[in-house]
Amino acid sequence: MSDPTELPGESASGGARRGRGGGGGGREARRALRTGGGIKQRRFIERKLSPFEILSEEGLAIIEQNADIILEEVGIEFRDDAEALQILKEAGCDVEGERVRFPRGFCRKIIRENAPATFTQHARNPERSVTIGGNATVFAPVYGPPFVRDLNGERRYATIEDFQNLVKLAYMSPALHHSGGTVCEPVDVPVNKRHLDMVYSHIRYSDKPFMGSVTAPERAEDSVALAKIVFGDDFVENNTVMINLINANSPMTFDGTMLGALKVYARHNQAVIVTPFILSGAMAPCTPAGVMAQTLAEAMAGIALAQLVRPGAPCVFGSFASSMSMQSGAPTFGTPEPAMVLYGCAALARRLGIPFRSGGSLCGSKLPDAQAAYESAATLQPTVLGGVNFVLHAAGWLEGGLVSSFEKLVMDADQLGMMQTFAEGPDLSENGQAMDAIREVGPGQHFLGCAHTQANFETAFYRSNVADNNSYEQWLAEGSLDAAQRTNNLVRKMLEEYEAPVLDPAVDEALNSFIAKAKESMPDAFA
Amino acid sequence: MSDPTELPGESASGGARRGRGGGGGGREARRALRTGGGIKQRRFIERKLSPFEILSEEGLAIIEQNADIILEEVGIEFRDDAEALQILKEAGCDVEGERVRFPRGFCRKIIRENAPATFTQHARNPERSVTIGGNATVFAPVYGPPFVRDLNGERRYATIEDFQNLVKLAYMSPALHHSGGTVCEPVDVPVNKRHLDMVYSHIRYSDKPFMGSVTAPERAEDSVALAKIVFGDDFVENNTVMINLINANSPMTFDGTMLGALKVYARHNQAVIVTPFILSGAMAPCTPAGVMAQTLAEAMAGIALAQLVRPGAPCVFGSFASSMSMQSGAPTFGTPEPAMVLYGCAALARRLGIPFRSGGSLCGSKLPDAQAAYESAATLQPTVLGGVNFVLHAAGWLEGGLVSSFEKLVMDADQLGMMQTFAEGPDLSENGQAMDAIREVGPGQHFLGCAHTQANFETAFYRSNVADNNSYEQWLAEGSLDAAQRTNNLVRKMLEEYEAPVLDPAVDEALNSFIAKAKESMPDAFA
Repeated sequence: MSDPTELPGESASGGARRGRGGGGGGREARRALRTGGGIKQRRFIERKLSPFEILSEEGLAIIEQNADIILEEVGIEFRDDAEALQILKEAGCDVEGERVRFPRGFCRKIIRENAPATFTQHARNPERSVTIGGNATVFAPVYGPPFVRDLNGERRYATIEDFQNLVKLAYMSPALHHSGGTVCEPVDVPVNKRHLDMVYSHIRYSDKPFMGSVTAPERAEDSVALAKIVFGDDFVENNTVMINLINANSPMTFDGTMLGALKVYARHNQAVIVTPFILSGAMAPCTPAGVMAQTLAEAMAGIALAQLVRPGAPCVFGSFASSMSMQSGAPTFGTPEPAMVLYGCAALARRLGIPFRSGGSLCGSKLPDAQAAYESAATLQPTVLGGVNFVLHAAGWLEGGLVSSFEKLVMDADQLGMMQTFAEGPDLSENGQAMDAIREVGPGQHFLGCAHTQANFETAFYRSNVADNNSYEQWLAEGSLDAAQRTNNLVRKMLEEYEAPVLDPAVDEALNSFIAKAKESMPDAFA
Repeated sequence: MSDPTELPGESASGGARRGRGGGGGGREARRALRTGGGIKQRRFIERKLSPFEILSEEGLAIIEQNADIILEEVGIEFRDDAEALQILKEAGCDVEGERVRFPRGFCRKIIRENAPATFTQHARNPERSVTIGGNATVFAPVYGPPFVRDLNGERRYATIEDFQNLVKLAYMSPALHHSGGTVCEPVDVPVNKRHLDMVYSHIRYSDKPFMGSVTAPERAEDSVALAKIVFGDDFVENNTVMINLINANSPMTFDGTMLGALKVYARHNQAVIVTPFILSGAMAPCTPAGVMAQTLAEAMAGIALAQLVRPGAPCVFGSFASSMSMQSGAPTFGTPEPAMVLYGCAALARRLGIPFRSGGSLCGSKLPDAQAAYESAATLQPTVLGGVNFVLHAAGWLEGGLVSSFEKLVMDADQLGMMQTFAEGPDLSENGQAMDAIREVGPGQHFLGCAHTQANFETAFYRSNVADNNSYEQWLAEGSLDAAQRTNNLVRKMLEEYEAPVLDPAVDEALNSFIAKAKESMPDAFA
C-alpha cells in the first residue's frame, strides 16, 4: 500500500496528519519523481509573477456589487434537493419554492470565514501531492468528451481503453500535475458502473492526484470508498484526496444531481469546484462584465452551501465561459471575451480568498491544427498569467469538448511545460545576469564557446518534444510531417514505453474486490 | 495626389503641420476607412490595460546598471563609419579604433532629453496614420524572408509579385495597421534596384504606413525621395512618414551599412528602430537577464548616435531575441525565455521613455500548422500584454523568418484582431454590466431572446474569419478542411476581391518616372 504519510509538502487543509511526516528524500524519492520513459515529473507551479489584472479595484467592486444584487434580488434555484433548501433556510436565507434569496453579504461572509484559502490535494505518491490556491497552479487534462479522435485519425465514441491511454499519457507528461477525472467518457462501460472503472484507472495507471465521480450522490460515495482503500479511512475524512467538478446549471440554477454530489464530497472533506458553465449569450448575458457577475453569484451560492454542510470543506471558485458563433450558435473558444472573463473572475476569487479554477487549452477545432493551437494558446496564456489555481482541460481538449485527442494532449502538455518555465520568471542571480560572459566575449565575437554558455547551455532553453526546429532539408528528408503527424508518432512511442507506477498488490486487490462487488449489485444501464 | 494634410490624429512628433487639419469626417472618410471587399480597417490599438510586468523595480535597476557597465567598460564597436566615430568622439565618448566606450549615463541622458516618447507616422491616407509609443500598439507584417510558401504549397524564392500580394493581403487585413517593409525579398529584381519596387509597391497597393530601405545609405535616400513625391519635401523633413529597421550586429557591434542608413533616416526625421538581433547563446549570453542587459546597451548606443545626428529624431528601442535548439543550433520560437526578454525589455523601454519594438507572430515551423500557431501565440500574447508599441512580423512569418506565408499572414491577422479587441478591456458601462438582462431572464431560462442579447449580439463576440465553429457534420460535408486549407481558399478569395486604394495619377507617374531614372543609372546587380 502506498504510504500517504510521507508527505513532503505542507498540509494547508488543516486536517490531521498521520505518521512520520518525513521528506521522503534519497534515491527512492528521486526514482518516484520519474515516470516511465525516464521523464522527470515537474512539481506543481509556484508562480513567482504577479497576475495580470484586467479590472481596477473600482471595476471589481462593481462586479461584486452586481453579484450581491443577483443573490439578494434574483436568487438562485436549488432544484430537487429538499435537504439543501432546508439547510439554506435554517441558515437564514429566504426560500420560496426552490428559489433561494440570500441576505446581502451572506455568502461572502460564510466563505471568507470558513473556506480555506489553499489546501493540499494528496496523491498516492506523496511527491505528486499538489497545493490548490495561492500562487500555485495545477494542470489537469481534459474532462468530459464522449468521443476520441484515435491514433488512426478516426473520430468515434470513447472506450475504457482510450480512458486508460489518456491517463497513461497524462502520467507521462511532466507538466501535467494531475490525472484529472473523466478524461473521456468510456461509453463501452455501463453508465452506472463507469465511475468505478474511471476512478480505478486513475489509481492504477497513474500516481498523480485525481478527481471523483459527480454523476450521482452514490457514485460520489463509491469514489470516496475507493479513495479510502488507497489512503485509509481517517486520512480521507481529515484530508483532501479528491477534487470534484460541481457545475451550476446556469443561469442561476443548481440541479439535484450536482447538489447531491456536492454534499457528499463536502461531508467527506473532499474538494468541490463550483463552476457556472456558461455559453455567453445563452446561459448568461453576452457581455464579459455580465458573465463575471453571474458567475460570481452562482459560485458563491454553491460554495456557501458546501460551507454550511461542512465548515472548512475545501472549495474552489470555478468559471467556464465561452463565446458563441453567430453563424451556428456553437460555443467558440480562444476569443477575447472569455479571456476577459477569466482575468476578471481570477481577481474576484483572490478577493474572495479562495482558490480559482478556469481556463485550459480550449478550442473549437475538429483537428489538432493551427486553429486548435491558436485557440488553446489564447486560453492558456490568460490561464497562467491570470493566476488560475486549478486548470482543468489543460491538455487534450478538441472540438469544443466533444473530443479527447491523444495528439492534442501531448502537444498541449508541451505548452504547459513552457508556461511552467515562464511562470518561474527570469533568473536574476549572478549567473543569470551573465556579466562575466559579456565581459569575456566582447564585441563581434560569439558566445557559443564561452565558459558561461558551456555551463548553462543544457538547461538554458525550454526543450520542446513536439516542435521541429531542424533545417528545412532535414525536415523534408524526414517526411515533411506537420506537428500533428509528428505527435502521432510520439504518442505511439509514449504508450509503448509506458510503465505503470508501483501499486501495492493488496491495495489493488481490495480495489478490484470492491468494484466487482459494487458492479454485481447493479444491473447494467446505458442511459 | 493623396492629401496628407487631413490628419485626424495628433502629431506627436512635434513637426510642422500643413494645411487644414480637419477631421476628414463624412462619407468620404468612411469610404476611406474601408478596403477592398468592404472590410472595415481598425485604427491602431490604444491599450486600456496596464502592461504585464515580469521584473520588479529592483530587477529592472539591476539590468540598467549592467547595461551601463557594458557601455562604459566593454564598449560598442561602430564599424566602417568614420563619421559616426567622429560624432561620438566629439560628444565626449572614448573612441579607441572602432571601439566606443560611453561615459556612465551618457546614452540615457541624451535619449531622455531628446528622443520623443511618442510620434506619429503619417500614412498617405491620413485615416491610417499611426501613433508609435505610449499606450499605442501598431501591427505590421513579416519582414525579410527570401522564400515564400506559395498558394500551391511550394516553397520557393520570393518574387515581386509575391511581394505585391503580401502587401495586398496586409492592406485587406483590418488589424494590420501598417504595410511593413520587406514583406519578402523579391529576388527576381536586381538587389540594387529592389528597394525602389518595394517602396513603390507599398505606396501603390496600400495606403497604410510603410518602411524604407536600409540595405545601403543611397537606398535609404531613394526611399526618402519616393516619400517626398507622395508627401511633399517639407512635410517629410518635418514629420515622420517612414519607420526603418536598423539592426545591431550583436554582440555589441554596428556595421557601416546599418549606420549609414540610420544617419540618413535620422537626418530626414524619419524613424529608426534600433534592434539588437539576438540568437541567445550565440550573439548574447544564454540567460534572459543577460540578453536584456546587452539588448539595452546596444539599443541605447545606436539611439544615442541617432540623437547626436539629429536631436529629436524619432527612435524606437527594438529587441529581437530567440532561443536556440540544442539539437541543431537553429533559432527556436515560442519558448518561455524570449517571452521573458520581451516583457523585461518592454519595461526597460518605458523607463527610458521611448517607444518599443519587439515580438510578433514568430515561429520555427515549416508549415502553418499547430506548431506555427502555438509558437506564434506564445510570442504574440507577450507582445500585446507587455505593451509593445511597434510589432514587426505580426503576421505571415514562417520557418524562423526564412519564409513568408500567405495563409499564415491571414491566420495571424485574425489573431491580431482578437488581441486588439482584448486590449480594449471589458465594457463596464451599464450595458456592459447587463444587470437588466439578468433581472429579465432569471434562473433556469435562456438569454438568447432577451432584449439585451438582441441589442448586443451582433458585436458581442469577436468573429474569426479563419476558425470553423460549425457542427462536425457540416465540417465533414464541407470537406474536413484544416485551418491552413480553409485559409488557402480565403487568401485566393481576398486576392480576387482586392481593390487598390486611390492614388493620384500624377503622383503615380512621378514615382514611376523617378524609379525608371534611378534604375537606368545602375547596372543590374544580384549579389
